[in-house]
Amino acid sequence: MKVKIVTDKMIKLKTPYLLFLGDTEQEGLAKTAFGLLQWCPDNCKGQLRLVGCKVDLGLKDMTPREAREKHNIGTLVIGVANLGGFLPDNWIATLCEALEAGLDIAAGLHVRLNDIEVLRETARKYGCTLHDVRQTTQALKVGNGKKRSGKRLLTVAADCAIGKKYAALALAKEMQSREMKADFRATGQTGILIAGGGISVDAVVADFISGAAEMISPANTQDHWDIIEGQGALFHPAYAGVALGLLHGSQPDALVICHDPDRTHTAFMGGFPLPDIKVVMKRNIEAAQLTNSAVKVVGVAVNTSKFTDDEAMTYMTSLSVQLNLPVCDPVRSGMAAIVDHMMENM
Amino acid sequence: MKVKIVTDKMIKLKTPYLLFLGDTEQEGLAKTAFGLLQWCPDNCKGQLRLVGCKVDLGLKDMTPREAREKHNIGTLVIGVANLGGFLPDNWIATLCEALEAGLDIAAGLHVRLNDIEVLRETARKYGCTLHDVRQTTQALKVGNGKKRSGKRLLTVAADCAIGKKYAALALAKEMQSREMKADFRATGQTGILIAGGGISVDAVVADFISGAAEMISPANTQDHWDIIEGQGALFHPAYAGVALGLLHGSQPDALVICHDPDRTHTAFMGGFPLPDIKVVMKRNIEAAQLTNSAVKVVGVAVNTSKFTDDEAMTYMTSLSVQLNLPVCDPVRSGMAAIVDHMMENM
Repeated sequence: MKVKIVTDKMIKLKTPYLLFLGDTEQEGLAKTAFGLLQWCPDNCKGQLRLVGCKVDLGLKDMTPREAREKHNIGTLVIGVANLGGFLPDNWIATLCEALEAGLDIAAGLHVRLNDIEVLRETARKYGCTLHDVRQTTQALKVGNGKKRSGKRLLTVAADCAIGKKYAALALAKEMQSREMKADFRATGQTGILIAGGGISVDAVVADFISGAAEMISPANTQDHWDIIEGQGALFHPAYAGVALGLLHGSQPDALVICHDPDRTHTAFMGGFPLPDIKVVMKRNIEAAQLTNSAVKVVGVAVNTSKFTDDEAMTYMTSLSVQLNLPVCDPVRSGMAAIVDHMMENM
Repeated sequence: MKVKIVTDKMIKLKTPYLLFLGDTEQEGLAKTAFGLLQWCPDNCKGQLRLVGCKVDLGLKDMTPREAREKHNIGTLVIGVANLGGFLPDNWIATLCEALEAGLDIAAGLHVRLNDIEVLRETARKYGCTLHDVRQTTQALKVGNGKKRSGKRLLTVAADCAIGKKYAALALAKEMQSREMKADFRATGQTGILIAGGGISVDAVVADFISGAAEMISPANTQDHWDIIEGQGALFHPAYAGVALGLLHGSQPDALVICHDPDRTHTAFMGGFPLPDIKVVMKRNIEAAQLTNSAVKVVGVAVNTSKFTDDEAMTYMTSLSVQLNLPVCDPVRSGMAAIVDHMMENM
């Protein structure tokens, strides 16, 4: 499974990648590496593991020097996160070795590579770049709300961490497989590492949220689709501002609602009951109409991982009838039904 | 006219102030100075004008040394903005003289005082502080949506630059004049200079908008009101994210809608028609209910400056009947009717 890599004027990483796994013991902490492997396998040429690492991506193990000299690798990507998002001291020597071999380093951690003096100095000495993909280095502008050519789809939801990135990647892949002009547009750190470009919209100064969203999906040809990764949720007490600015700046023609039938309350922030899916649709449409009066919901992406095949089919059919929209599970069923619906209706 | 000064752990300016007017020729560019003079006259002890300045606040002209030594002034506040928000070269020598005299300097310009090397070095040498009030230096947290004790009012509107700060200041003043426990809470640079504290919510990283709003109005006694200056608007293509995060983090019990009967489209950004005032009320209430289900609109603050007295009275009465809410013009009529309504209903 893979999506075409977007390269643009935002963050731009030298491909292919060496995936760094540190001494990570749990697969769950290597979500970024597995995401890269799933969505851009052609760019994942090797893995680098320290003593004690118990995660294996099935890629060739290589040293930084082998990666650079034998496999022409451009960037070491830190594919694991510690709890806390910091950079363990025992990784530093290997990361310096990568810079000495001529590799750039990219990471989406909370800590900034550029704030670690030894990495900054070593990168400077060897002419390499440290990419902190959560921080954009580009000059942002305030949003202007002006209509841009081309078509846009944004994935939205009632909550965070509910599958908005996955749904967008699966849609872009389905559209690309049909030879449609479609690009995945990343708005968060993992998405940026997968796409090789993008802006982490939750990390920009608040005045520039919608302006950043406008830059993420610039004007394009009329038959081109940007499939934009959603962030936050209008109903989230911490991140609704990010979601609304992204919605306004993206000017979506189409919305896909991402939905988890098992989730009744906000994740990571107990006590906030989630609204009904029809409220999610209504509020997102109302808000999106500010910058695109023609916006429509074109489908629902559900996560039925806890259901049996039969249960999933029953649930999806019932929801589809209730909403009069295609309902897909990107993992179980793929996104073809939603793309069919878009091709007929947009 | 004045409001009580709020001091808190956010930005905190040493009072009283010497208002710096540079060589400004137009009163319109000295809005910050006039705002300070209007809302905290007790803290405005002197003015400092360069050759060519044609603005006069009616304060005593003094040099930085006189200000510090004779009048015990704590901070020179830059009370004028250039078009472009930069700092003219011919101001620098006088600002350095102020630092040498022991004054702090505060400004809400786009350019940061701390980015100008000669100011930074001079401040360091003389142990003074440069306050860039648009940038908070405090560690922010992500919002948690938890209910805080005390009461809160937020001013909201259909657009920017429509009187949200003015309405909040006028409400706080009216409540303070009745010996109610009420503080004005500033969320933008001019408000911060007036209040002597606050956080510029449009300048924080997007992830922290609602978290910053939670810090701006911390838990307080049950009978205490925070009167929070609104920012942006849910209907603004550039700044809606700021408005929504501020709404969620403020958890307002009461909303006051600021309304300009003459404004049909967004200011500074043509082409976006403003919604009807009932839509403004409905959307703000819907969104605010996420973190405070008991939120109510308690009144409307209108700007009737283009109307005659008779026209204004007719308009305000008609709107009041239509909405079944008190309608005030903070300049023409004061805010008593809204505060009466709050005391009866909250």
